Amino acid sequence: MSDLQKTDFSKWYIQTIQNADLMAYSPVRGCIIFKPDGYELWERIQERFNAYLKTQKIRNAYFPMLIPKHFFEKEEEHIEGFAPELPWVTQVGNEKLEEPYALRPTSETMIGNAFSDWIQSYRDLPYEINQWANVFRWEKKTLPFMRTSEFLWQEGHTAHATEEDARKRTLSVLDAYTDLIENFLDIPVYKGQKTPSERFAGAVDTYSAESMMRDGKAVQAGTSHYLGNNFAESFDIKYLDKDNQMKHVFTTSWGISTRLIGAMIMEHGDEAGLVLPPAIAPTQVVLIPVGPWQKNPEIMQKLTALEENLKAKDIRVQIDDTDASPGYKFNNWEQKGAPMHVEFGPRDLKNNSAVIKMRDLDDKESVSLDGIGDRISDELKTMQKRLLESARARNKANEYYDIDTLDELKKHIETKKSANETPGFVLIGWDGTEETEAKIKEATGFTTRNIPFNPPMEKKVDIVSGKPAKYTVWIARAY
Amino acid sequence: MSDLQKTDFSKWYIQTIQNADLMAYSPVRGCIIFKPDGYELWERIQERFNAYLKTQKIRNAYFPMLIPKHFFEKEEEHIEGFAPELPWVTQVGNEKLEEPYALRPTSETMIGNAFSDWIQSYRDLPYEINQWANVFRWEKKTLPFMRTSEFLWQEGHTAHATEEDARKRTLSVLDAYTDLIENFLDIPVYKGQKTPSERFAGAVDTYSAESMMRDGKAVQAGTSHYLGNNFAESFDIKYLDKDNQMKHVFTTSWGISTRLIGAMIMEHGDEAGLVLPPAIAPTQVVLIPVGPWQKNPEIMQKLTALEENLKAKDIRVQIDDTDASPGYKFNNWEQKGAPMHVEFGPRDLKNNSAVIKMRDLDDKESVSLDGIGDRISDELKTMQKRLLESARARNKANEYYDIDTLDELKKHIETKKSANETPGFVLIGWDGTEETEAKIKEATGFTTRNIPFNPPMEKKVDIVSGKPAKYTVWIARAY
Ligand SMILES: [Zn+2]
Ligand SMILES: [Zn+2]
Repeated sequence: MSDLQKTDFSKWYIQTIQNADLMAYSPVRGCIIFKPDGYELWERIQERFNAYLKTQKIRNAYFPMLIPKHFFEKEEEHIEGFAPELPWVTQVGNEKLEEPYALRPTSETMIGNAFSDWIQSYRDLPYEINQWANVFRWEKKTLPFMRTSEFLWQEGHTAHATEEDARKRTLSVLDAYTDLIENFLDIPVYKGQKTPSERFAGAVDTYSAESMMRDGKAVQAGTSHYLGNNFAESFDIKYLDKDNQMKHVFTTSWGISTRLIGAMIMEHGDEAGLVLPPAIAPTQVVLIPVGPWQKNPEIMQKLTALEENLKAKDIRVQIDDTDASPGYKFNNWEQKGAPMHVEFGPRDLKNNSAVIKMRDLDDKESVSLDGIGDRISDELKTMQKRLLESARARNKANEYYDIDTLDELKKHIETKKSANETPGFVLIGWDGTEETEAKIKEATGFTTRNIPFNPPMEKKVDIVSGKPAKYTVWIARAY
Repeated sequence: MSDLQKTDFSKWYIQTIQNADLMAYSPVRGCIIFKPDGYELWERIQERFNAYLKTQKIRNAYFPMLIPKHFFEKEEEHIEGFAPELPWVTQVGNEKLEEPYALRPTSETMIGNAFSDWIQSYRDLPYEINQWANVFRWEKKTLPFMRTSEFLWQEGHTAHATEEDARKRTLSVLDAYTDLIENFLDIPVYKGQKTPSERFAGAVDTYSAESMMRDGKAVQAGTSHYLGNNFAESFDIKYLDKDNQMKHVFTTSWGISTRLIGAMIMEHGDEAGLVLPPAIAPTQVVLIPVGPWQKNPEIMQKLTALEENLKAKDIRVQIDDTDASPGYKFNNWEQKGAPMHVEFGPRDLKNNSAVIKMRDLDDKESVSLDGIGDRISDELKTMQKRLLESARARNKANEYYDIDTLDELKKHIETKKSANETPGFVLIGWDGTEETEAKIKEATGFTTRNIPFNPPMEKKVDIVSGKPAKYTVWIARAY
């Protein structure tokens, strides 16, 4: 077995997503092609999140992708945040446009403008809407799924009568993201608030669900923004309240993207390739005939019966009866991350048994054909829990709480580096100044991830200034 | 009741989609906002077509939206067809791009380029893929849903070893479109082949499912293209065949778009507003309490029980218990096109009955509460068939087979116009020349729709030249 994941995580990542046939590079700078096995992961995330939206009576809509230039200029912080990354349409056919359009990096401006038309009275509130869309941010460094010039996401936009309602929505969506990311994708998250320097451009407060990858680096897996009156003022979104006063609404926005696919790969993959949580795997169980099975039709008959049995239990199952050798098939389905495979040959037929192998465990096990359907169903459920628990244990082993000075941090990183281990997430005290953040970043490349809602302990002293800490903060290297 | 549909169809259309809250205008030229009630129609079309794709093992993927300029130049006819309508990204942030990108009008070039990487051997064929995406065509005249600068669609792209296989796919998809458009959207279609002047830019043959709107004008509801080796040659898509020879593949492409929403509105809507086929309606049945229902809690109890009963039958049902008057509610749900409403008040309670009203019929009917769930379910199924049959009857009444000269055509159009009736679809003889098409268009605005697979009769003489007809063709004014 290779040790590429341990020795060169980036190379391992690229190799894994290519062997699993999830994507292809494209001729457009920083854009990838989502191949069917990659795109289906996104479709399943969509299905799961749409179910949540339905419980909240938040409906989907679709807004134009092009944003008129003057829209950006209405919210100063917003344009400053996004301007360098915006692709501009300046021409149609041979004709230059009078006003250029940006390809949307997000839709607060377009939707804010629509809200100002649609919202008139307190009776219209809350006004809550979601959009599934392609968005564009021309980032300097790109990485498939994690950071691409064009990506797919969902963006929710809501308007409320009160700050309290808006803040409630901001945080309840963060909980919904947590549920999806932890229970569907098996990625444990760290919930908390972003520091001002890491806030969304135009937000009052940004909250994030951060997660730790196998290499100890952080991924911002989902974000939810409380926007206060900022966009309501820029786009004049007002309503007539019960007291006959015109008031600005309070808005929120929140998103998850195809980046979650990258996070899932980096969280669960191993030296043999991709490992998919059963809940999201396009193929959950692969049935593989072994031995001289072509000579004995009973083998395929039994496998077909098992396939029907599993399908009736809503398990996504596939028989691999191609001409390739069993060894090739095991390897291929391991690379693709199928949670489980079942081997079945002449000897198994005689013993009324089959051999099962879970993708994340080393051992195979021979199990009776009697009741095998229930057994497989149980194994998948157990694996779904096990992957989350393993990830939690990995996280715990890579969290550090006792680093109190910048020197200690640098030393920690050095020590880990020479042991070929990860520096992980470090919990620090922070006095609340940008100076501290800048110095940490300059010295170590670490950035503040978030101010956790439930920190494992309180840190008392700022790691750089030595002044009393106002906040306890997670820092880490991030994707 | 208004007669706007009859007197000013365009105005009626705009009023209908706005009263039904399907869309809003946007600040981007020719682009609309798909509001939730409009977008949900598209989601249901997607769900239905995805089910078809699954039966064909055609999987979804996603390709970059931006197309490098030199890609267009590889297929000469293709660029000529699309060039005037292409929006160009020429700049990112403040930097000019070395090579501009077009916003995709369709993805034959991007996907052709990918196919040339992915297809190596006859074992890889057929290679069949679908994409749901936003596309851009900067058309001069726009109309919500029917023709917008940005629209949503599905584009299928397939590659085959033989012409026969490719042609088979081209036509089988046309049948799948027909099934969806006729049986789901209740819009009868005219299947046939496009004339060369109306072909997709780069295709060998284009086939279409055309449909006739209430105003007699045609909508191209779905198209399927046999592309021969054209894109295979431009993008060098080759495979090693069993005989050890390198060969070009044969490709197809096919699409349906959010235009189908417009067609559905124009097909079924009436003077009171939208009429939705039950199969696609977001809300199929509205339950409306009438009389002094707030004083009698038994009324809402019975309605809630009925709601549960219908939900258990997978019927999309909603109780309208807002404060508005029953009359306002009837009118509102009529405008929104809900297929059916049920009225229930104190008198109905006493009689153990309820009043049902189908959107497309004039009369109300009082029915017993016993077995009302099955009755409602049956009524919805009957309405689904009835709308298609009504549309077929309307079509028949607006088809003309006995027009043999351009003068007769002009006179026909004049006569219809002065009677405030529609000139409809006219079946003509065609000698196969572009001159005939050009002259028809110039004199009447009619264009060739398609050469029907099963014409109601054979026309012998070209309508313009008087020469022997090579083809029998439908012509009409088109959206
Ligand atoms: Zn204002
Ligand atoms: Zn070639």
